Amino acid sequence: MKAAILTVGTEILFGEITNTNSVFLSRRLNDMGIDVLYHYTVGDNPGRLAEIIGTAFKDCDIVITTGGLGPTQDDMTKEIACQVMGDHLVMHDDILDFIRNRLLSYKTEMTENNIKQALLPSRCRVFFNDAGTAPGFALEDHGRWIACMPGPPKEMTRMFEKSVVPWLEELTDGCLVYKEIRTFGIGESDLETVLLPVIDGQTDPTVATYAKNGECAVRVASKRKTREEAEHAIAEMIEMIEQYVGEYIYSTEGEEFPVVVGNKLMSSSLTIAAAESCTGGMFGAALTDIPGISAVFDRSLVTYSNQAKIDELGVKPETLEQYGAVSEQTAIEMAEGVRLKAGTDIGISVTGIAGPDGDTEEKHVGLVYIGLSLGEKCGGRCLCRKIDRRIRERQRNRRHAVLSMFDMIYRNVW
Amino acid sequence: MKAAILTVGTEILFGEITNTNSVFLSRRLNDMGIDVLYHYTVGDNPGRLAEIIGTAFKDCDIVITTGGLGPTQDDMTKEIACQVMGDHLVMHDDILDFIRNRLLSYKTEMTENNIKQALLPSRCRVFFNDAGTAPGFALEDHGRWIACMPGPPKEMTRMFEKSVVPWLEELTDGCLVYKEIRTFGIGESDLETVLLPVIDGQTDPTVATYAKNGECAVRVASKRKTREEAEHAIAEMIEMIEQYVGEYIYSTEGEEFPVVVGNKLMSSSLTIAAAESCTGGMFGAALTDIPGISAVFDRSLVTYSNQAKIDELGVKPETLEQYGAVSEQTAIEMAEGVRLKAGTDIGISVTGIAGPDGDTEEKHVGLVYIGLSLGEKCGGRCLCRKIDRRIRERQRNRRHAVLSMFDMIYRNVW
Repeated sequence: MKAAILTVGTEILFGEITNTNSVFLSRRLNDMGIDVLYHYTVGDNPGRLAEIIGTAFKDCDIVITTGGLGPTQDDMTKEIACQVMGDHLVMHDDILDFIRNRLLSYKTEMTENNIKQALLPSRCRVFFNDAGTAPGFALEDHGRWIACMPGPPKEMTRMFEKSVVPWLEELTDGCLVYKEIRTFGIGESDLETVLLPVIDGQTDPTVATYAKNGECAVRVASKRKTREEAEHAIAEMIEMIEQYVGEYIYSTEGEEFPVVVGNKLMSSSLTIAAAESCTGGMFGAALTDIPGISAVFDRSLVTYSNQAKIDELGVKPETLEQYGAVSEQTAIEMAEGVRLKAGTDIGISVTGIAGPDGDTEEKHVGLVYIGLSLGEKCGGRCLCRKIDRRIRERQRNRRHAVLSMFDMIYRNVW
Repeated sequence: MKAAILTVGTEILFGEITNTNSVFLSRRLNDMGIDVLYHYTVGDNPGRLAEIIGTAFKDCDIVITTGGLGPTQDDMTKEIACQVMGDHLVMHDDILDFIRNRLLSYKTEMTENNIKQALLPSRCRVFFNDAGTAPGFALEDHGRWIACMPGPPKEMTRMFEKSVVPWLEELTDGCLVYKEIRTFGIGESDLETVLLPVIDGQTDPTVATYAKNGECAVRVASKRKTREEAEHAIAEMIEMIEQYVGEYIYSTEGEEFPVVVGNKLMSSSLTIAAAESCTGGMFGAALTDIPGISAVFDRSLVTYSNQAKIDELGVKPETLEQYGAVSEQTAIEMAEGVRLKAGTDIGISVTGIAGPDGDTEEKHVGLVYIGLSLGEKCGGRCLCRKIDRRIRERQRNRRHAVLSMFDMIYRNVW
């Protein structure tokens, strides 16, 4: 099955917003074994919209659109879909009720424009909208399909997972399940090479690697007759992948590193404090993105100057003088210092040269030390990890340092 | 003049990467008064590539492509451009020299594949590549143009600004200049409403507003006979915009808030320390994104727990008890505390309820206090700002709080 993704919206052609809907849909359709041949974006122009749908159907069985379903004059995806697929709009009373109830819950009155949203093609399959008022739909004509969804990503992704996936499963006669495995510490090309025996010749489950902000993810997708079969196939495949690269995996549920570590800290009631230098607060910022983390996260002391390291963390002036601020000794004193001061179970620290400048004869940009101090409850020991990447990009170095801190905790606390 | 943007690359159709090239090109082409009618993405498939270019030329005078210019078999944009525009590839010796010298500087040997990159259409205009080896080019046929650039955003954006803009200026017989004004504290619809008298009926300079991560930007673009004329027109327009919304503007050069404040701190040699609660380190993280900031940034104490506020900042237990951690009194004690402890000229603090939960009877999610303590050099006073947005999204609240901290400094220190 071959698909085209069509985004409708002048704001994309103006460059006002980035087209993330196409990224999401591409991944999910590929997961399902549906080939995506084209992405198109057009503005709110009926002639061009009709023409591009016609062009897409030359090669594709299915066109998936987002956008242009709103209640204003500009929004004409429904009308054009009818025109191309030979149908007409009729009032759908069940949708009208749905929209009315939704607006009631918002304490908002129904307007003429809202009523228009209940007009849909006469023979379409309706996709209800859990997150907004514009419903989506799918429409068939001579074995070709068009599926139309609203543009706001929140509404679209929910509608896709809840209603479009089951519809596609019926259409393609199978159940589609996918999982994302997240790894840290291995590059994408290495990951691909190591996994080659697993990836090679594999048609179901499919296995694909993705680079993602300094980490790599592996997506595993399966399409089988039943959900159980698909889930079983995926579980087996994940087990096999774990045999090859298990040491790098930190989530088989697509969760990000701060979420994984944050949840483990909360569930095991281990408290933590951090001492940051080159990351400037990024570790604390990432951890506190998680609601409820205040139960275990006490403080992070961002000690950028040497004086701050001495004042706040009790790093010895001799240590700074003898070994420098970017050293194993300083990293360990920082981690120890913050743990003892905060009275937490875990102290984590980072010190490094983020760049782009700041090389010395012995130490160059990209050099980072991560210190970990573990109290009684965690075995009572101190560790340090040295990272020596020789990369000059400040932001990449800082991001990698933060991930390394989470990795250091994940690998040594549990 | 009407344009289509064509992205060539299977990785986009797989959803592996987001198409940011189209966003960049859309903005810049619109700045220049060139209407963008379509975005297309196709994979490395010669038939589809040729067909989509043909489709684009039905409505457009110019097709701008990115991607598919690499040296491997997959890369075929050059060949297809020749096929559609009636030309053929020839060896360009100046490019061959350029690539050879570039590889020499990398200490890399020239390969067969590198030599292939010097093959370009016989009658094209060449765009040299400052950041990679694949050159770009523009090719005309019967008053229609195709311009091809490499896919990596770094290479593409540099080539565009340096070579494609001048070529488009010749083509459209004018000089194109644009500036981005950045504001904080006003929503996009308010900004648009207030600026209506300036925007309305304006054809040159063009004025457009954009929402951007909790802030709003205004883009001003002008196309005139000479660069001086365009710059003059833009300067006049910016002056006019300042009359309407000057109080919200923090940069007329498109710089982000941390960069603007960081540079002002460095140029005026004012030192700063921060005390963060609900932002968890985001302020420090943002400020330390700027290379060289260690000259003025001393420390940020992320005091998430009440005990940390007492220990680290000397916030009085009575204050926390009587007014709570999220209060004007606590914010001011935090700012004062960190400034005195670090011995800096400026102390800035933040405390708030980021959400999504954590409402109390008197205080609800979204409530944030920013404290500012200024030493002798800055007038010696304390200020507090209350933000009461009643938004439940943790990330939006946190991001807004950080921007408010920069705004608080920007508006009160200089």
